[in-house]
Amino acid sequence: MELDQVRAWVREAGEIGRKYYNTAEVRRKPDRSVVTAADVEIEQLLRARIRATYPQHGILGEEGGVHNTDAEYLWAIDPIDGTGAFVSGLPIWGISIGLLQQGHPILGCFYLPVLDEWYEADRRGPALFNGQPTEVMRENLLDSEAWICVPSNIHRLYSIHYPGKVRSLGSMAAYICYVARGTAAGALVGRPKLWDIAAGMAVLERAGGGARLLHSRQPLDLRTMLNGQSAPEPVVVGSPPALEMLLKRIRARGEGRGARDEGRGMRDEG
Amino acid sequence: MELDQVRAWVREAGEIGRKYYNTAEVRRKPDRSVVTAADVEIEQLLRARIRATYPQHGILGEEGGVHNTDAEYLWAIDPIDGTGAFVSGLPIWGISIGLLQQGHPILGCFYLPVLDEWYEADRRGPALFNGQPTEVMRENLLDSEAWICVPSNIHRLYSIHYPGKVRSLGSMAAYICYVARGTAAGALVGRPKLWDIAAGMAVLERAGGGARLLHSRQPLDLRTMLNGQSAPEPVVVGSPPALEMLLKRIRARGEGRGARDEGRGMRDEG
Repeated sequence: MELDQVRAWVREAGEIGRKYYNTAEVRRKPDRSVVTAADVEIEQLLRARIRATYPQHGILGEEGGVHNTDAEYLWAIDPIDGTGAFVSGLPIWGISIGLLQQGHPILGCFYLPVLDEWYEADRRGPALFNGQPTEVMRENLLDSEAWICVPSNIHRLYSIHYPGKVRSLGSMAAYICYVARGTAAGALVGRPKLWDIAAGMAVLERAGGGARLLHSRQPLDLRTMLNGQSAPEPVVVGSPPALEMLLKRIRARGEGRGARDEGRGMRDEG
Repeated sequence: MELDQVRAWVREAGEIGRKYYNTAEVRRKPDRSVVTAADVEIEQLLRARIRATYPQHGILGEEGGVHNTDAEYLWAIDPIDGTGAFVSGLPIWGISIGLLQQGHPILGCFYLPVLDEWYEADRRGPALFNGQPTEVMRENLLDSEAWICVPSNIHRLYSIHYPGKVRSLGSMAAYICYVARGTAAGALVGRPKLWDIAAGMAVLERAGGGARLLHSRQPLDLRTMLNGQSAPEPVVVGSPPALEMLLKRIRARGEGRGARDEGRGMRDEG
């Protein structure tokens, strides 16, 4: 499981994404979210590459690619994380591929083709942004110019008490990678599926960050998501001090169980 | 006043921006917002080009370039609209240059160097996105995949009742251009200065859109901003039906004058 090899697959996938960008026809999935031929074509490509190289490994992909998810090694693929941004002609979307060993992320690669930005990590080296080591932000988290990322439906579900900037940019994987890169102070990523965050979590952990559940405040355990379920609650990501800060400053609108249940409906930008 | 000429200046300015992107040292202005050597160098370049070509024209620039603002023709320059995004390594920032004749926008050019996206208009042709005619969105404004742009401090000041996506991306000029391009349904741009929106308004008007004040609901009159004042209230932009929709769906938090005054403090992303 070499990063060089995964990078070659993802570069090939990025060419497909770029080809369709600003020209793709949009279809609606049953949940009304959007999908394009680019999503389907990229997932097929990545599945074929993985199966040819690692026939024993499992695969879980956003566009329906499920194969042997009980295997020790499981690849989680989001062919285009940020399809909404992609079809809107916004640049923050990318190809996300993560590898888990018994539910623990051991390799991740997220590539944004329009920006030619690479976020990568394996278990041997540091988190990398465009080939350079990178770390999460631990200080100045509340500066007026500091910023966090949130889902684009946050205004309906949560109130945020944050003195810096709150950005909604279009891709959950990008949010996690911006945190890993130390440019975003933290992020709320809604209720992700495994393919949305597997690559990002591999990068984030090597950058010194982590993920917690918004209400129970427990660490996120990816083993609960191996069969394609959403995370049990909205997830926040950041450095240890950023996680403490975010857990205090993001509140469900209204009080109690009703508002929490609404929060459980938050999923976005995958 | 030829678009070709302005485009050549802006292309030159874009090279400066790209050179500093991801390397610029950041200083704080008295209002705590950020500025870089790139902002200063680009404004100097554009002022020099304008003065050499049109010595009688006025100039109003974000980084202090004020010259003969009583002239019939006034150039409004934002050397980097979205400096916060620029220093964060986010791609949505650009060079904004607009020309007003007696307070009416007659030419605008906004260029995003990282994305190589051009938004342009003069009084002779349609609004252009990368050289192709473009128009505002008039239908499906409330679809779950439709989206609006808002400032990154919106969470402190306003509540938004919108069934689509709400994005905060980093540049007021980009927001107006995304509306002109017909990809964003509309935008709230806080309380802009003239340099933030002069180019965007020239493009937006040729794309069939307009701007209204959020509280009084009056059309925005750029003549009130010729001396560098902020717009008297937050501004919404969109097609005529989008403006009606936004004016109903964006509310100051709390009630009455107090909340409005807080709204008057909203300025962001310029």
